[in-house]
Amino acid sequence: MPKPHLQLHPQLQADCHDLGRLASGRLLLSRNASLHWFILVPDTQAVDLLDLPADALKQAMLDCQQVSAWLKQARGYPKVNFGALGNVVPQLHLHIVGRRSNDACWPQPVWGNLPAGGHWPAKELTAVQEAFNHVG
Amino acid sequence: MPKPHLQLHPQLQADCHDLGRLASGRLLLSRNASLHWFILVPDTQAVDLLDLPADALKQAMLDCQQVSAWLKQARGYPKVNFGALGNVVPQLHLHIVGRRSNDACWPQPVWGNLPAGGHWPAKELTAVQEAFNHVG
Repeated sequence: MPKPHLQLHPQLQADCHDLGRLASGRLLLSRNASLHWFILVPDTQAVDLLDLPADALKQAMLDCQQVSAWLKQARGYPKVNFGALGNVVPQLHLHIVGRRSNDACWPQPVWGNLPAGGHWPAKELTAVQEAFNHVG
Repeated sequence: MPKPHLQLHPQLQADCHDLGRLASGRLLLSRNASLHWFILVPDTQAVDLLDLPADALKQAMLDCQQVSAWLKQARGYPKVNFGALGNVVPQLHLHIVGRRSNDACWPQPVWGNLPAGGHWPAKELTAVQEAFNHVG
């Protein structure tokens, strides 16, 4: 059954590169290259993570685990922060953020604290897209 | 099989009321009564949520869903924020936070932004403990 392709919220479109699809939804990467800040946008009308039905929650968390494992294994992040807030952008989106003790806003959460950073080099964007090569 | 009863990190002990156990671990409530800010401490040595084995992750999320449903149904919060950070307190702990558009730090995340608030009345602490009456 084809997945619904929800329209991304304009703020997410503005802030992120769209990497394509994982099983549960679209995977984005923040344009701020200070650290790898992924955002998963599940295919749902629910607005809070903990309101997802069991199957949708399970698949979304599996996809987030895949991203987290890549952050640790492929990019050497010792820690991954996870969050689902949506106080500003109501469309459900899940944050999976690689953290290091010397990053630009450690130990604070990234939201509201990460300074503006550079852009991702094309080579890294390609590498990330290839790592999550499930584009639908 | 009896669950391991991990020692709570001193910062969590200092900041929270210990409400007892859910299936996956201990349930805490922040002493700051500005809003209902629950913290679940799963029985694990893992430090990141997305590193939990499938069964442990499933049970932790189920417990968080129970807390979230109570926040919405019993206390009328329209929104629930969820997060697993651990940049300061390394023991894995999951935040389940009731949010309203007129709360003390809306729309910012609570971490680092929620001003000091009053204490919970004994009556509300009792009500919360009775709502999650799975003490082991």
